[in-house]
Order: sequence, then C-alpha cells, then structure tokens
Amino acid sequence: MSELSVEHLLGIKYLKQNDIDVIFKTADHFKEVINRPIKKVPSLRDITIANLFFENSTRTKLSFELAEKRLSADVINFSASQSSVKKGETLIDTVNNILAMKVDIVVMRHGNVGAGVFLSKHVNAKIINAGDGTHEHPTQALLDSYSIREKLGSVKGKKIVIVGDVLHSRVALSNIFALQLQGAEVKVCGPTTLIPKYITSLGVQVETNLKKALEWCDVANVLRVQHERMDIKYFPSTREYTQLFGINQDILDNLGKKIVIMHPGPINRGVEITSAVADSNNSIILNQVENGVAIRMAVIYLLAQQIKR
Amino acid sequence: MSELSVEHLLGIKYLKQNDIDVIFKTADHFKEVINRPIKKVPSLRDITIANLFFENSTRTKLSFELAEKRLSADVINFSASQSSVKKGETLIDTVNNILAMKVDIVVMRHGNVGAGVFLSKHVNAKIINAGDGTHEHPTQALLDSYSIREKLGSVKGKKIVIVGDVLHSRVALSNIFALQLQGAEVKVCGPTTLIPKYITSLGVQVETNLKKALEWCDVANVLRVQHERMDIKYFPSTREYTQLFGINQDILDNLGKKIVIMHPGPINRGVEITSAVADSNNSIILNQVENGVAIRMAVIYLLAQQIKR
Amino acid sequence: MSELSVEHLLGIKYLKQNDIDVIFKTADHFKEVINRPIKKVPSLRDITIANLFFENSTRTKLSFELAEKRLSADVINFSASQSSVKKGETLIDTVNNILAMKVDIVVMRHGNVGAGVFLSKHVNAKIINAGDGTHEHPTQALLDSYSIREKLGSVKGKKIVIVGDVLHSRVALSNIFALQLQGAEVKVCGPTTLIPKYITSLGVQVETNLKKALEWCDVANVLRVQHERMDIKYFPSTREYTQLFGINQDILDNLGKKIVIMHPGPINRGVEITSAVADSNNSIILNQVENGVAIRMAVIYLLAQQIKR
Repeated sequence: MSELSVEHLLGIKYLKQNDIDVIFKTADHFKEVINRPIKKVPSLRDITIANLFFENSTRTKLSFELAEKRLSADVINFSASQSSVKKGETLIDTVNNILAMKVDIVVMRHGNVGAGVFLSKHVNAKIINAGDGTHEHPTQALLDSYSIREKLGSVKGKKIVIVGDVLHSRVALSNIFALQLQGAEVKVCGPTTLIPKYITSLGVQVETNLKKALEWCDVANVLRVQHERMDIKYFPSTREYTQLFGINQDILDNLGKKIVIMHPGPINRGVEITSAVADSNNSIILNQVENGVAIRMAVIYLLAQQIKR
Repeated sequence: MSELSVEHLLGIKYLKQNDIDVIFKTADHFKEVINRPIKKVPSLRDITIANLFFENSTRTKLSFELAEKRLSADVINFSASQSSVKKGETLIDTVNNILAMKVDIVVMRHGNVGAGVFLSKHVNAKIINAGDGTHEHPTQALLDSYSIREKLGSVKGKKIVIVGDVLHSRVALSNIFALQLQGAEVKVCGPTTLIPKYITSLGVQVETNLKKALEWCDVANVLRVQHERMDIKYFPSTREYTQLFGINQDILDNLGKKIVIMHPGPINRGVEITSAVADSNNSIILNQVENGVAIRMAVIYLLAQQIKR
Repeated sequence: MSELSVEHLLGIKYLKQNDIDVIFKTADHFKEVINRPIKKVPSLRDITIANLFFENSTRTKLSFELAEKRLSADVINFSASQSSVKKGETLIDTVNNILAMKVDIVVMRHGNVGAGVFLSKHVNAKIINAGDGTHEHPTQALLDSYSIREKLGSVKGKKIVIVGDVLHSRVALSNIFALQLQGAEVKVCGPTTLIPKYITSLGVQVETNLKKALEWCDVANVLRVQHERMDIKYFPSTREYTQLFGINQDILDNLGKKIVIMHPGPINRGVEITSAVADSNNSIILNQVENGVAIRMAVIYLLAQQIKR
C-alpha cells in the first residue's frame, strides 16, 4: 500500500506500521531531492498551506516552511502574536476564516492537548499537528525514527532510552508510540518527579539510574531541560539534574560499547549533554534536523495527494 | 468602460458606479480562479507589492497576501513593530525608502485618518488603503457589497442596516458610501453614544430600536464590539450592549421573514451575535472572507494594468 | 578577473580593489534589471538563503529580501525575537541547525563584533555580514561607494567627510575601508567624544569644525544621530549636536561650491540634516537605497557562483 490510512497527521497513535513505511519511503525520495543542487520539486504548485503557530517555535516552523517551499506550495504564516486570537476569537473561527481563503493544509502548533483533533472535526482542511501541548509532536517522532533507521539499518528490535523530563514532553510521548509501533523496546530515564505515573501502562519501563539505562540501550534520545520548569516545584535543580542525568564523554567511554546520541534541540550544552557528546561521531543530532525537512515534505506530499484524487 | 477612473484605491468616496462594476466583473473572474484546483494566475510576475501595516491586522493582511501571491506578484511585508518608524522616521521617508527599492504598489493600514490620501500625493506608487483610522476601509466595503450581490442578485434597491459602534468604524463609513453609490438604502442601528452626529447628513437614518431595524432591512451588517472601547467613557457596557443590540435566533425567528447576516470579523460570539446566528444559513460571514481574496485580486490587478500601460 | 578573491563577505577590510570592481560591474547589470518592467532574473532558483537578524533592522532586511527574491532564490527569515536564542542556544548551534536544512547562504546581522568571522570558521555556508556590532557593515559601504561613482564618475581622488557619531558606527568604519581602498581621501567630523582614538592610525584626519570639513570635501556622508546614545554619558545633547554638526541649507549655500549629501537612513529630519538638505538636488539618499538592492544582488550572485562551480 502506498497510501496513508489517515486523513490528517494528528498523532502517532493514529498511524499503522504501513503508514510509517509509506512516509519513510517518500522521505527517502525527498531526502535525495534536497541533496541535489536544485533542491525543489514542482509537486504542489496548486496547494496553499497555512502555518498556524500559537506557540513560539523556531526550528519546527523553519523546517515546515522549507519543506513547503521545496514542494513549491504557496505558504502563509500566521503566529498568535499577530492574530485576532488576542481579541478573543475562537480557534474554529480563526481557522475557518483562513480556510475560507481556500487553504488546503493547516500546520498547527497549539498549547492545548488535542487542539489538532478538535480542529480536524470542525474544519474542511488537512491538519498536521506540529505539537499540541504536552501531548504529541508526530513529525518529530517520525524524523527521530527515520534517523535511527538511517544510522542503524532499522528501528525494529532496537533498544531506545528517552532521558529527561518525560512528564512535560510531547517529543517523548510521540517517540514512545512510534518506536513501539515499529517493534523497538523503549525505556525512560529521569528523576521520578519528571516521569508520569501512567508511563508503565504504555509498556515502558522506568530506569532512574542513568548508567544502567545507557548500558542497556542502543540509542539515547536526550530531552531538553526546560530551565523554566526547574524551579522549586520540581526536584531536582538544574545543577542536580546535570549531576544525575547529564551525559558526558566519560560516561559514554565507560560503557564498553557505542551508543547513538539524539536530541530534539535546542541543546543546553553542559546541562543535559556536554559539547563533546553533542559534537561526537555518535551524535546524529544534525542528521535529525536534516531529516526533519525530508519527513515533513513526505507527510505534506502524501496528504496533498488525497486532496488531488 | 473596463478601466478604473481612479489611480489609487483610497476610499469608496472617490469611486464611481462604473468602477464598482469593473471591480466586481474582474472579481467574478478571480473568484472562479481561486475555486479551481490551481488557484494561481501568472498575471503580475513583474509587480512588487509592499504590505505596510502600521496597525495590527490578521485577516486583512492574510487576505491581501494571498491575493498578491495568487496573482504571482512579489510580496514584501513590513509591520510597524519591526520598523524604523519606532526610531522616529516620518511616514514619507519610510515609504520613499521602500519605493526606491522599486515597489509598484503599496497596501497600507495606518492609524491616522487620511494617511493613504496624504501618501498618494507624495510618493510614486499605487496606494491601496487597507484601513485609515476610523475613516475608510474600501476593500471591506467592496467585498461586503459583492457578497450581497452574490446572495441577493443585486445591491440596488436593497435595505441594509449597519448595527453597532458606527462611531469608530471604518467598515461602517465605507459601507455607507458603497451601498448608497449602488442604490441601496442604508440605516444604522446602535446606542446613540456610538452613532456619529454627522450620520444623518449622509442621508442615513438612525434607528435605535434593533427589532424595528431588523424588520425594515434585507441585510444586517453587524459590527464587531470593541471591548476596549466599552469602558466608562461610553454607555453601554458590553452586557447592556448585548441585551439591547445583540442578535440572537429568537429575534430573527420573530421577524416573519429571512434577513441576511453579515459580519466583518473577528466575531465576539455571544456578544454582538450568538453562535447560532453566526453559523446559520442566513449568515454569509465566511462568504465575505472568501470574496475578500477575489475582490483584492481584482483591485490589485486593475491598478497594476495602469502601470503596465 | 571576474571572480571574488573572498569566500564570504565579512568586511570591507578583507576585499581587494578588484573585488570591488567585480561587484560594481555585476551591480551595473542588476541595476539595469531592476529598472526593467520585469525586475527579476531566474539566476538562483537552486539557492536557499537564510536571513538571520539578531538585531532589528528594516531597510537592510527589506533590501536583502528584495535582492534575494529578484534573483529567484528561496528565502527564509529568522529574527532573534522568534528564536531559540532566547532559550540560551549558542550561535553556532542555531546556525548549524539552519544549515542542516540545506541553506546555502546566510545573511547575518548580529550585535557582537566579529560574529560573521567567527561563524564563517565554524559552519559550511557562505556568510554575508549585514552588520556586526559597531564593527563593519560592508554592503552599506559598497552601495555608498557605488552611489558616489554613479554621481561623480569615480571614487578615486574624491574627498569624502563622514559626519557624526563615528565611534559607534559600523557604517563609518566600512566606508573608511572602502573609500581608502579605492583611492579616495577620507576625513571624519564630529564631537571629539564620538570620534574613536584609533581613527588617525587608519590614515583618517579628524576635523571638528563642520564648516571647514564641508569646504574641504566633495561628498558629506552624514551619519544618523542615535538619540538613545545622546545621554549624559556623552556630550553633546541632541540640541547641541544639531547646533554644531547639523547640516542646513544656509551652510551649504555659503560653501561656494556644490557637495554631494549622503545618509544611510533613517533620517532624523531637523537633527543631523534639515528636510531641505535631505530633499535637495545634491542629496543622493534615495539613490543609495535603490543601489542597495543592486549591490546586494551582485554580492549574493557572485558568492552563489562559487557554490555552483
């Protein structure tokens, strides 16, 4: 099957294994395209895409924007700070207004869990979730899996540990869904205060000892420390966090094996990982960024084909 | 005559009936274009358009931007918050600098009444007024009339009531000019504190009783309540306003006829109109938004032809 | 030689006379292009350019953006206020992330002296310095020299005085380098508190008497007064500055010769120059703006050719 089983990309939890295969195969093609001298294809000249970012974002927004432009789509950007949302307009009204201008695809980041799902039920456009609160961030999980597959040949059977503040991370949750769907084993590692209670019900083991977690895994996906959350409400402090869960070259050298290091960015160098680790040969952090454009081109392209049929 | 009698679109008060006919006929063509699978025409590849927004705007700016892109013009955006205007530069200097970069058309929203007229006398570019203070917003009035014509067959002879804060509304003033020019009858309805004294000198009757106004009209164009103006300086409060001038389904059901409901957006649901009314079959609010892109394409296209001649 | 001797445009001090000749000759071509009805060339369809502005800018950013679009490059904009820089990310990480998305050329304005040079050593992309702190602003100096050459036939042998706050001005320093390289004589004129001590070591004479400076020169390049710097730390106040160094028509009329007036903008009318002077026939201020687009097209085009070889 070369088609998606879904009509929107709302979360990894709605995807089947075949969807991921189709996306990865399409991304392979686009990765080749963006490494050519001419990095564009005229595929979507007839598609208008609106990027609706109700939360700040740099790299995700840039990555989507480049993906859209390289598919030759028409792009309009809309950020909350410019918007009527400030005047008290509802989300559905905002989006319906944009859609009345004949927009085909909406890429949306929103602070509320489920904003994309809600929207997909009320408006007539393809919705791509670019992050909804602490819930899902499906294109990030797809590009993470795609990068693991590129580095290690496949995702199936691999052992991945997600390190850090899992409680507040949509990257963690989408990764758990994507990795398990593809037959990987997933553990999380972090301070118990930052691990959600429900995590074991997802079939994910918790390991609070960083060294043991790293000895077990093939890949460590290191989450960003959100300084603004490291306040008195949560043990530990940033300094304590680095001491207990920060990854440095010494720790990696003592593992007796090589593991792959991933990070969704932006990195706090010297906090969750040291510069030596971030820039080492085991790190595929910049590959993740590169693959992000190819994955987003693939998702947009595949959803646009449904419109054209 | 298939040409405009004006060299800029500064306000409805400078237009003739034939100008409106030409704009509507051109918009008919572009409305057909934006409903095709390929929503673009390569008409204005040689035109550069600068969008200068000295006041915040979401929908008007997006609508212009989409119109420009669908005509294949080159577009640059400029908003006051990024601008040298903050450093004390004059409006003419700002615009002259942009024009020295070979910009053909300037779309401008500005807080001062007459900013567009002033500018058109001092710079060498086509000026489109996208709102000047509480004065005019001509493309809004054109799309409103165009939407009435689409719904009711013609504007001529129709009875339109504009409901709300007419005093501060450029939408109201431009609508009055456009509707009267096309032979419609116009009344305004709202609290006397929000109706300007000069309104009767324009041949517009004031009706302070909402029920009577709606019984009289074919179309009610409902203005947005500006919460920030509903303070102690103006009777009434928002709650009082809704009680006296808010339109709900009950009121409409008791009219004994169907009237068309319009709103320039963004809507305060439950304040000036209820959700039931906004989303009913009588509402053409989203048609207004769709028509906005076609009308703006038409205005830009027609002014650009004057440059090319 | 029709090629640049440098791989980036980091500052005028890295250029040779031949580089300036090549840039000016290429700009001549593009100036002709942007004065045609169709102001675009399809030269750089295969190039992606990122505009990274870590400081606010209106005209420089617009000028680069128009130059890029008229070369048909793909453009992405990135300003510090939207960026992860706020979250503590390092400059190299920010830029490496953007480059991993396959960006070919980075145009950067940054508050730190040497930011462009630093970056060029660590990332794999062409860097164009659009202003680094109080250091250099090379495209401004190039467009200034290009405008002098256009007005007076050549730069060689001409006498140019730079008037104003030289201490904080990247425009002044880049102009000194560019003018001297092309064989012009340069003096600076301003309050001694705003002239850097090292200026004479560059072979630049200081003239604190405005009248004498203007009597000597062929061209006066008038710097903008930065009101925010005219505080108690620096003599003089804005009013004193205008009295001593402000240029008005009276002063020019009493010179017994015509001199060319330049200004990088935005102008404080009535402070460093009066409106009469800014708008007179001797002023080439708007020519500078127009030439800015052609010069930036030339620089971008020439660096892009190195990528394509």
